[in-house]
Amino acid sequence: MADHYARQRAGDGPSGLPVLRWEESADGPLLVLLDQTRLPGEEAEAVCADVPAVVAAIQSLAVRGAPLLGITGAYGVALAAYRGDDVEAAASRLAQARPTAVNLRYGTGLALAAYRSAGAGDPGHAARAALAAARELHREDAAASARMADHGLVLLDELLSGGGHRILTHCNTGTLVSGGEGTAFAVALAAHRAGRLRRLWVDETRPLLQGARLTAWEAARSGMPYTLLTDNAAGSLFAAGEVDAVLIGADRIAANGAVANKVGSYPLAVLARYHHVPFIVVAPTTTIDPTTPDGPAIEVEQRAADEVTRFPGGGRPLAPEGTTAYNPAFDVTPPELVTAIVTEEGAVCPVTGDGLMELWRRSHRVVEG
Amino acid sequence: MADHYARQRAGDGPSGLPVLRWEESADGPLLVLLDQTRLPGEEAEAVCADVPAVVAAIQSLAVRGAPLLGITGAYGVALAAYRGDDVEAAASRLAQARPTAVNLRYGTGLALAAYRSAGAGDPGHAARAALAAARELHREDAAASARMADHGLVLLDELLSGGGHRILTHCNTGTLVSGGEGTAFAVALAAHRAGRLRRLWVDETRPLLQGARLTAWEAARSGMPYTLLTDNAAGSLFAAGEVDAVLIGADRIAANGAVANKVGSYPLAVLARYHHVPFIVVAPTTTIDPTTPDGPAIEVEQRAADEVTRFPGGGRPLAPEGTTAYNPAFDVTPPELVTAIVTEEGAVCPVTGDGLMELWRRSHRVVEG
Repeated sequence: MADHYARQRAGDGPSGLPVLRWEESADGPLLVLLDQTRLPGEEAEAVCADVPAVVAAIQSLAVRGAPLLGITGAYGVALAAYRGDDVEAAASRLAQARPTAVNLRYGTGLALAAYRSAGAGDPGHAARAALAAARELHREDAAASARMADHGLVLLDELLSGGGHRILTHCNTGTLVSGGEGTAFAVALAAHRAGRLRRLWVDETRPLLQGARLTAWEAARSGMPYTLLTDNAAGSLFAAGEVDAVLIGADRIAANGAVANKVGSYPLAVLARYHHVPFIVVAPTTTIDPTTPDGPAIEVEQRAADEVTRFPGGGRPLAPEGTTAYNPAFDVTPPELVTAIVTEEGAVCPVTGDGLMELWRRSHRVVEG
Repeated sequence: MADHYARQRAGDGPSGLPVLRWEESADGPLLVLLDQTRLPGEEAEAVCADVPAVVAAIQSLAVRGAPLLGITGAYGVALAAYRGDDVEAAASRLAQARPTAVNLRYGTGLALAAYRSAGAGDPGHAARAALAAARELHREDAAASARMADHGLVLLDELLSGGGHRILTHCNTGTLVSGGEGTAFAVALAAHRAGRLRRLWVDETRPLLQGARLTAWEAARSGMPYTLLTDNAAGSLFAAGEVDAVLIGADRIAANGAVANKVGSYPLAVLARYHHVPFIVVAPTTTIDPTTPDGPAIEVEQRAADEVTRFPGGGRPLAPEGTTAYNPAFDVTPPELVTAIVTEEGAVCPVTGDGLMELWRRSHRVVEG
């Protein structure tokens, strides 16, 4: 295990470092990840030479975001194959590194299937097949981002009246979570490019502040009109009529349309319903899990109390010593509170299990067990 | 202006320093406030020798909480009178130090009225009258806390079934905001003492984390079973059926029962309604403002962006440079979302303007202009 947080390139701009890259080194291949826990203050890379390092990067949230987790999982399987590790065991460890995001399971499954079909008799060939599968998923995800942005903007324009869209978003769903420009953020960016984004309201997203640290950073880079707020101030914006739509991503979508996403999404769904504002989920079909029937079947990851009781980054305590914290990473929004789910294959609006499964079937080449 | 943050008494326990005290020094009287911005890490006092220092302490939130602001305002007027300052001007500055909490206006008005009726012809007598009024308000607030706790617990027991109450609270409403044990917190404490508090869920209350810093500290001191959460995790608790009632304080209650309170209260009210959970406001009648007809008439204080974009206490940036933030200090919950308002004179449930005004009339000796 070699998890280095070393390579800082002070000279590079924010876009200087790719979110994820495969590098051939003299000692073998490396999976190099932009360390998202250090943004926006510092652009550093997490260099992963083996699967334990990849798992650690996933668990520390150095790499995060449902689509990117899928891609990372696939490259992780390829890494194990190139190293000659036990690929089945590696795939299993990667798939279970975080329990909620189904993309992780999907990406590892895809690379593992490619490895298996190439035949274990020729390890080099099988490793190349796993890497090719990871690269294909990476490319497909970029293309899926662009298609989600198109479908999402069409839907926004249909649902909302003119005058420019004021969009509230939660957590981070942009280029940092994807091979392309992301999910919900990509839709907002498309609206911006079309001259129809009036304001992007950015929830800071406690405890790890992905909104403040990452979404604000991406919005600033893209020249979008954005304003940051504490998560609990969203209610005031709804009450003042300042939100035209909520756009969020997803970590898992159950077969009935229930959506697991970053904690704080469900309260926004309830507020949106109370204020008759559309609540729109944007996610690739790889986030849909036909084997999860509904919301209660989704396992929600519980994270350590010190994410809440201390400043992000292990800073000084915010609460008295001995304070315990309830810290679910995600919450689950039932389908009746979701106005639409936008995927690369199109949107379902209203959300029905049948409609969702139809989108899923259009895209899936591999049926999971 | 002399705003010292000096007197640390490392030896004293958490209860060693009073929240507010009047001290006679060789150079004249001082208003000494426990600096709440430094808790729980540090127990330091803000020593105010004049009105500008008191105003600064109010605006920096060294002293905060609606009832305590009223008491502070009254002592501030007495301080001006003892110094021989322009008392009318001082009262006006104090009353306007923060725009939302009506208690500030009420407390300064009370001390100013006492000063005026004592007659400006004898400044010493008038100053003593202002101080006596401040002290009486201080004592009355302590007594009001105890009565709110009694009324609140009776109401909780009526509204909820047995098995112990699981109460969600927001911001800080305990001994730090009052001459006594506070408002909403005092009710939870009464439930705890009666053996009927199963859990106190403590919202951290971004941006200034009064829940994490202050309520958790008070709950720990009192031996209450408490758990901290990010504000956005409350939705998951409601969805899991883990909240029996929401108890919050108030900074202003309009004549129709609309409640201004710490930002994040309104989303809890919407969640509580959606989940059929009682949403209960606990506040002394001094928080009721008959001159404010309804919610839209309440001025909501907007605070600086850097409370959101930087760590509390002026730490390192959380968001990219140049990020603007929407940072209202309060939000407003309409009366139709409030299950009950509990005061020292009893509770209104359901909330009606007539019922509320009846409670207000029982208690008010001074009619504000």
